[in-house]
Amino acid sequence: MTQSAVARARIDLNADLGEGFGRWRLTDDEALLAVVTSANVACGFHAGDPATMRRVCDLAAERGVVIGAQVSYRDLAGFGRRTMDVPPDELAAEVAYQIGALEVFARAAGAAVAYVKPHGALYNRAVQDAEQAEAVVAGVRMAGGLPVLGLPGSRLLAAAERAGLAAVPEAFADRAYTAAGTLVSRREPGAVVDDADAVVARAVALARDGRVTASTGEEVAVAARSLCVHGDTPGAALLAARVRRELEDAGLRVEAFA
Amino acid sequence: MTQSAVARARIDLNADLGEGFGRWRLTDDEALLAVVTSANVACGFHAGDPATMRRVCDLAAERGVVIGAQVSYRDLAGFGRRTMDVPPDELAAEVAYQIGALEVFARAAGAAVAYVKPHGALYNRAVQDAEQAEAVVAGVRMAGGLPVLGLPGSRLLAAAERAGLAAVPEAFADRAYTAAGTLVSRREPGAVVDDADAVVARAVALARDGRVTASTGEEVAVAARSLCVHGDTPGAALLAARVRRELEDAGLRVEAFA
Amino acid sequence: MTQSAVARARIDLNADLGEGFGRWRLTDDEALLAVVTSANVACGFHAGDPATMRRVCDLAAERGVVIGAQVSYRDLAGFGRRTMDVPPDELAAEVAYQIGALEVFARAAGAAVAYVKPHGALYNRAVQDAEQAEAVVAGVRMAGGLPVLGLPGSRLLAAAERAGLAAVPEAFADRAYTAAGTLVSRREPGAVVDDADAVVARAVALARDGRVTASTGEEVAVAARSLCVHGDTPGAALLAARVRRELEDAGLRVEAFA
Amino acid sequence: MTQSAVARARIDLNADLGEGFGRWRLTDDEALLAVVTSANVACGFHAGDPATMRRVCDLAAERGVVIGAQVSYRDLAGFGRRTMDVPPDELAAEVAYQIGALEVFARAAGAAVAYVKPHGALYNRAVQDAEQAEAVVAGVRMAGGLPVLGLPGSRLLAAAERAGLAAVPEAFADRAYTAAGTLVSRREPGAVVDDADAVVARAVALARDGRVTASTGEEVAVAARSLCVHGDTPGAALLAARVRRELEDAGLRVEAFA
Repeated sequence: MTQSAVARARIDLNADLGEGFGRWRLTDDEALLAVVTSANVACGFHAGDPATMRRVCDLAAERGVVIGAQVSYRDLAGFGRRTMDVPPDELAAEVAYQIGALEVFARAAGAAVAYVKPHGALYNRAVQDAEQAEAVVAGVRMAGGLPVLGLPGSRLLAAAERAGLAAVPEAFADRAYTAAGTLVSRREPGAVVDDADAVVARAVALARDGRVTASTGEEVAVAARSLCVHGDTPGAALLAARVRRELEDAGLRVEAFA
Repeated sequence: MTQSAVARARIDLNADLGEGFGRWRLTDDEALLAVVTSANVACGFHAGDPATMRRVCDLAAERGVVIGAQVSYRDLAGFGRRTMDVPPDELAAEVAYQIGALEVFARAAGAAVAYVKPHGALYNRAVQDAEQAEAVVAGVRMAGGLPVLGLPGSRLLAAAERAGLAAVPEAFADRAYTAAGTLVSRREPGAVVDDADAVVARAVALARDGRVTASTGEEVAVAARSLCVHGDTPGAALLAARVRRELEDAGLRVEAFA
Repeated sequence: MTQSAVARARIDLNADLGEGFGRWRLTDDEALLAVVTSANVACGFHAGDPATMRRVCDLAAERGVVIGAQVSYRDLAGFGRRTMDVPPDELAAEVAYQIGALEVFARAAGAAVAYVKPHGALYNRAVQDAEQAEAVVAGVRMAGGLPVLGLPGSRLLAAAERAGLAAVPEAFADRAYTAAGTLVSRREPGAVVDDADAVVARAVALARDGRVTASTGEEVAVAARSLCVHGDTPGAALLAARVRRELEDAGLRVEAFA
Repeated sequence: MTQSAVARARIDLNADLGEGFGRWRLTDDEALLAVVTSANVACGFHAGDPATMRRVCDLAAERGVVIGAQVSYRDLAGFGRRTMDVPPDELAAEVAYQIGALEVFARAAGAAVAYVKPHGALYNRAVQDAEQAEAVVAGVRMAGGLPVLGLPGSRLLAAAERAGLAAVPEAFADRAYTAAGTLVSRREPGAVVDDADAVVARAVALARDGRVTASTGEEVAVAARSLCVHGDTPGAALLAARVRRELEDAGLRVEAFA
């Protein structure tokens, strides 16, 4: 077995958790924590109140799930899905603030914040926008420096690497890819793969072979150290559990990257 | 000179800093940082956006001013001055969240958060209300445990002591005291001492002698390791500077307690 | 049939609606709007973003359900359930602000805001606290003057009457009552009636006879022009629909008070 | 004197007012209300709490200053200066919400909201972005339909006209103009005219002659029915007062457009 095959044989599963706020719940945190190896915990800017953050950190630590900071624009009303032109200095400080807030709960649970992943519109913006990508990385460094989880080929991962941080590429089993190996925009028809069997098959292909079938039919290489599974729709946790089982059945070791 | 006199000869000066939010400024942070030895930095719940927190921490660290977390109810619209019945678990988590967020900026400045002081309505509530006092202390412990700055005789300091945290009593040179050594309510006439000479004289009496003249004329003992000076009114920084000068002229060592 | 019996024969059903915020949903607005005659629409302070307010007003108007403003403390994180010491002038202005914001959507839907009901902690506080009760009423008058829906015997309804506003008493079929005709505190065991059959029977007794069995066994008189049904738990809309059916089967006319 | 000269002889002065929030003040509302004829009152999304909105409306009505709704992105932390990709339906509802909230206070003061002007990043975005311009106008129509104040040639005014609303162009005496009659971007040097004499001279030229000297030296035509004066810097109210005096000395009638 080659070195590359060994490397490919390990895969992380990450999901967004703790995305409620006060009275409102969204994600089925308990069910997801039984499946994923990395928890992207909302830090209060798009979702995630302090008591929820604490509870999710406690549960994650108990189950050995690695805790990451899911940082966002300050936008509760828009759930962090509205792209914002935040000046770089402010954005960096906002990212650092969120990481620091989460660290307290991770530490109290006997764990630590092990990585950072931007949420929603910030995630998407930092794919192409060098200024915001660098601001996010500046915030991560301000908070001490942590691995950054993002899209392969994104400005975000490039900026993380330049800053000497671990840049961890992830893939999406339920998103369509272009022939160039990038995501099909959600505005296009067919951007999201709804069929559960297809999602599972793509997860295995991505994790084991580093490949996925593009929406135009070609096989394209997608290097990913982690697969993102979604948790905010009914049945999502069940699908995530099935993805995990089939990854393990395919001989992959499902374990945290951090 | 007795041991007790030596102990009394040191006094800390603390002030609320960074109490702007976004476009709005309130405190003259630069002027106050030239005067005080401890900076109660707002952490975003009643005031204090991340960029401001970062700037104030940088300035404080540069000038050797000790950084404390000024934690508050979540109430930007009321500036943390509206008493709130926050359930203890939520309040503890909210306090911890604020401390963690500030820690990132203190650490990035090469310093650390060295103490916690509640703000406004939370400060006042935690004088009498054992449940909220204990929730604040639970939050401080969740964040790792830090000295707590508060009113002598308050439930807050009692709870801090019971939890094994340093309980640091403070006094106010510009507030009237009752014969029992407690603060005259702000709703009473004469609760605030406006005359600058009187404020300075009271500061010296409190710091050097541990005494102050009550509004009813008696001399009362007030044990304080820190004096709180205000920074949110015009001229406040000038008055604070004069207080410091006269404390030093009276032979006191003005230095941080932490 | 006496005049009083005729008056008792009409009953309003009110429920809290639109209590989501951005990405989060709470109440099953569509199902509830098929049942109730009055919709207490959240106005953005404890829940209710503008787009949700618009949608709920459109649906309510379409179905002939009367629109009321469910006003609250400014407390998204606590869902308006944290009692707050808001100064009367600020509270009155906050109440008026919420009513005005809702009016726009009611008007755009071809309807109007027809009444005001405080939410959560503000509702409870205004039962006993004359100052806040009067501040709420001052806010209602600032917004032009509307009927106020509240607890019989509350300071709120007394203040509304003194101000010349219609004071509309409501009752709760799923809450235990004391022998004095007041609600058993939620902190007491048995404060909430869980059994669906009991809820239905109590609804009929309250609406038809103006009576309910107290937790201590006595029959007590409870004058109510409206019954509040809850919509924030699974099955709530189903229970509300059953309550309505049985009220109609008991010969009551279920119609809006406003 | 031609009809056109007569039309040019009237000019409105508008300024942003009530741009504090809770404890924070920004604009010198009292001084500005003695100068301007139209008050753009902040509605709570970038600034402006309910009590401030009430006070400013009362003062404006007392002094005969016309009240307008200064609507913004929901962005207190960024003071509405961060461009946001808000979906059109949400943006329209947010605009309507703000107008409705302000109407209550205008009405309570015996006045009415007479026009709408977007603030900050929303103002700038609606110059070029047809989708957001139309969303703002949809919000204004949802609130009943009002004149819209904006930049001549902007998508916003075009959308307002198409919707049958009055589209009122404004100019800035303290901003540099290009030879094409548009504003020089704030990112360019010299974008803001600091010299008070120059500001006054430009105000007269704009109001009386409909012309201003471009930053490249040409005289360009700028049709404006209103001049915007700024109130958020020290001395701003004084400068605004001088602008008004000199406009009157130049024979112009300073009066509200609405």
